[in-house]
Amino acid sequence: MTDAPGQSAMKQALQAYVDRINAGDAAGVLALFAPDAVIEDPIGSPPRSGEAIAAWFADTVAYGTRITPVAPLRGSHSSEALLVFDVEFTPPGGERLRIRSADACQFDAAGRITSLRAFWGPDDIEPATSD
Amino acid sequence: MTDAPGQSAMKQALQAYVDRINAGDAAGVLALFAPDAVIEDPIGSPPRSGEAIAAWFADTVAYGTRITPVAPLRGSHSSEALLVFDVEFTPPGGERLRIRSADACQFDAAGRITSLRAFWGPDDIEPATSD
Repeated sequence: MTDAPGQSAMKQALQAYVDRINAGDAAGVLALFAPDAVIEDPIGSPPRSGEAIAAWFADTVAYGTRITPVAPLRGSHSSEALLVFDVEFTPPGGERLRIRSADACQFDAAGRITSLRAFWGPDDIEPATSD
Repeated sequence: MTDAPGQSAMKQALQAYVDRINAGDAAGVLALFAPDAVIEDPIGSPPRSGEAIAAWFADTVAYGTRITPVAPLRGSHSSEALLVFDVEFTPPGGERLRIRSADACQFDAAGRITSLRAFWGPDDIEPATSD
């Protein structure tokens, strides 16, 4: 698999994704994606690309988004890896919410994310309580 | 989404998948899959279908496979859902192993699994210690 990134490259990118979102570093998050990347978050919603991805992560930071991984990262025997997490954020004018989510990502040979598809359904979102 | 299963139908199927594997019920596990289902476990390995799936789950039971979910099931806004788990099993003549895995599944309108793709890489398998 000469054109596939290594396991550690994929996992380092996903850890950087967590760290940079939690640090409010939208530009740093964007740098983890390939120029032609596509985001489908949640799965079943219209895919975003290009400028829509930049706007998406600007909102992510503006909403005070915090990601907490809930299991070790999973790799694969190909160029895909999985981040399983809970995420809290505050949408404009709304209460703080928590989603039980997971990002299934594909990577290019340079270790950049080319596809991100988020597993979360209508039953996986709830108010973020102070527990 | 009139042709999509509901969130609860998908999650019930995945919970039954866990319960039936842990009970050693290979026929019961097979009954959760559509006739034309495809399994890619791990992602990057040759996909299995038809009789190869029956043989796969016969081996699964023969190896004393036990699945422990490590996070709540994730749904989607479409006909996909995710099971995140650790799994232990004993291959023939080998020591007991543990894999940190996750099964990304697609479902038909009847709630049967049509595609199962497992996220685990070379770094996600280790000897199952007695901890």
